[in-house]
Amino acid sequence: MLPLDQLHDLVEPTPGKIVLFVLDGLGGLPRPDTGRSELETARLPHLDALAARGICGLIDPVSPGITPGSGPAHLALFGYDPVRYQIGRGVLSALGIGFPMGPNDVAARMNFATLDADGHITDRRAGRISTETNRALVEKLRTIRLPAVEVFVETESQHRAVLVLRGEGLSDRVADTDPQRVGVPPEPARALAPEAERTAELVRAFVAQAGELLRDDRPANALLLRGFADLPDIPRFPDVYGMRSAAIAVYPMYRGLARLLGMDVLDPGPTVADELALLRERWDAYDFFYVHVKAPDLKGEDGDFDGKVAVLEEIDQQVPTLVALGPEALAVTGDHSTPALLRGHSWHAVPFVLVARTAFADEVRAFDERAALRGGLGRFSALHVMPLLLAHAGKLTKYGA
Amino acid sequence: MLPLDQLHDLVEPTPGKIVLFVLDGLGGLPRPDTGRSELETARLPHLDALAARGICGLIDPVSPGITPGSGPAHLALFGYDPVRYQIGRGVLSALGIGFPMGPNDVAARMNFATLDADGHITDRRAGRISTETNRALVEKLRTIRLPAVEVFVETESQHRAVLVLRGEGLSDRVADTDPQRVGVPPEPARALAPEAERTAELVRAFVAQAGELLRDDRPANALLLRGFADLPDIPRFPDVYGMRSAAIAVYPMYRGLARLLGMDVLDPGPTVADELALLRERWDAYDFFYVHVKAPDLKGEDGDFDGKVAVLEEIDQQVPTLVALGPEALAVTGDHSTPALLRGHSWHAVPFVLVARTAFADEVRAFDERAALRGGLGRFSALHVMPLLLAHAGKLTKYGA
Repeated sequence: MLPLDQLHDLVEPTPGKIVLFVLDGLGGLPRPDTGRSELETARLPHLDALAARGICGLIDPVSPGITPGSGPAHLALFGYDPVRYQIGRGVLSALGIGFPMGPNDVAARMNFATLDADGHITDRRAGRISTETNRALVEKLRTIRLPAVEVFVETESQHRAVLVLRGEGLSDRVADTDPQRVGVPPEPARALAPEAERTAELVRAFVAQAGELLRDDRPANALLLRGFADLPDIPRFPDVYGMRSAAIAVYPMYRGLARLLGMDVLDPGPTVADELALLRERWDAYDFFYVHVKAPDLKGEDGDFDGKVAVLEEIDQQVPTLVALGPEALAVTGDHSTPALLRGHSWHAVPFVLVARTAFADEVRAFDERAALRGGLGRFSALHVMPLLLAHAGKLTKYGA
Repeated sequence: MLPLDQLHDLVEPTPGKIVLFVLDGLGGLPRPDTGRSELETARLPHLDALAARGICGLIDPVSPGITPGSGPAHLALFGYDPVRYQIGRGVLSALGIGFPMGPNDVAARMNFATLDADGHITDRRAGRISTETNRALVEKLRTIRLPAVEVFVETESQHRAVLVLRGEGLSDRVADTDPQRVGVPPEPARALAPEAERTAELVRAFVAQAGELLRDDRPANALLLRGFADLPDIPRFPDVYGMRSAAIAVYPMYRGLARLLGMDVLDPGPTVADELALLRERWDAYDFFYVHVKAPDLKGEDGDFDGKVAVLEEIDQQVPTLVALGPEALAVTGDHSTPALLRGHSWHAVPFVLVARTAFADEVRAFDERAALRGGLGRFSALHVMPLLLAHAGKLTKYGA
């Protein structure tokens, strides 16, 4: 595996366009009564045609057996080793609600919680209060002022929120106040390194003021913080690959991650057709497009096998629009599997197809897990996706003489 | 590849059991007259049924082309990168004879050898003396006393023995006395680091006293030492994976390695049926079972193709007992290949099958080298075996958000 800086040295600009079409949670598992997965069940004539024209395979987002969150899974697709480039919980939460993190920010994931009369935690999620209640509590917390830093408190949903401190000289080396169990008091915010002493003190002051403000609320009379994180030191995607790069995505988390990597984040309408219309509209302005479709993952998380089949068929209908644009290299894959049977992300390898003039077409004629296994790319790490796309778009020169 | 400490952070306890059934030296090579390997020749209805139900693949114990010893091959199966976690020759020899190595021990592999009148080595193996002669010589050497350390001398077989020094402040940074060629004298034991000066001096004193004791023996009138090693600093298997872990193995080397990794080592009778009876008996007491069967490797080392076929068929008859216990995740594989045609360990990839409720069954219907190649796991590093087993047993949470 070439490190990003060495890969960068091989990149040369060419006019051909690259599209990475990510169908979130794409991979599935066979339904016991039919023995066929969501992809194997769906009628996907256009994706099957891509499989027939292109070279197929199965990607491991992190490594076999590891179920990735969306952050690591997307980093890997973008060519960043997710074990090396870790994005903290707080930053991912902030990205997930579309909060524009800056270089002077430290973010933490915040839970509203319930304490008993002795100050011991009885519920780490405050009975999963409604998002409306959350918003009302957040309004209270926004009155908190701390010396020399800006304080942002943002609702995520139910008991979940995000705290961001903005100011010079902050550090994310602060321990969680969430002890991850009940029957004990919250931990005080402790510095994990000398440079974080002031940040820890600011967090303790925030927690103390919040405790006063929430004292009479039930069940949310306290808060727990975890995953303090600042923006990671991570190379910018357009710089690494020498491409004007755009993200077309609806959900905040993916938009935030793309922005963090330095892509331009475009604003599509809510449907796949809207996304592809925007792609066509901005076709000349960029060299690389990341297009993200959330629906298969949502249906998988709901355990809705038939619903996942239906959205896959809807997406398939849009594929001709994508192909008609004539990308020099097009990949269709997922960031990870979300089998309806498991109602969540899983570790199973994800089907992948690459279509390009220079692709050595294999014998695969269908876009599904079992067919992809016989593909020319075999089973491979998601980290190879970007080098493959660049190569097939003619954008990589020879390595060594 | 996730480092062990990061993998550890993902582990959560669940009630499901994991069984790793290791058929030593499993893989083979086709016999020229039939074109079929040992596995392809054997009638294996129960292993074939597992292949049909599960997901198959071929593992590379270390990496393609590398023939592993039993130590590195097992470390890889257990998820420890054998290139990073090296166990010294001396420790492996001590484990191999069941010697209970402790933290204050330094072990070395010892060969009886022949010197001529000038003190030059004429035979590094003393004409492969009998094990009985070895035992008699070892009795002599056990009279040797050294200041402030205990001395253990143990017969391995033929010309092979093990020396262990036990005491405070010893170091294994001592050079081999075995020059690995004839016509030269043995090397003096030299310290390779300042902290090993005292250990080297003790070894020289041992060698000098041994030289006196063996002076009149023929052909074993000297000894050569190599592979000085102490216990490696290696994370405990039950801690890494959060599982109560048991090893069921007959041979000392495998029992020693499992003990070194912190598994409980159980005491089965000599047959596979005995091993599986013990497995059933202790089923409730553990979360993870490593079950080791030595026979295929022994037949492979003997070059006994038909014998290997026969023991594979015997093992196959026991598979229903294993399946009846209902492990949440079951893997059957080998630590390495031992083709009868090569009469020794080899670098060839090893068939692997994993059976679990969440396994995406592939089209493989037979448990052999050629069939496994078409399996859903493709060809993969043995280091992924433990993450896959944990994932399929529901014991790994999501990596990153």
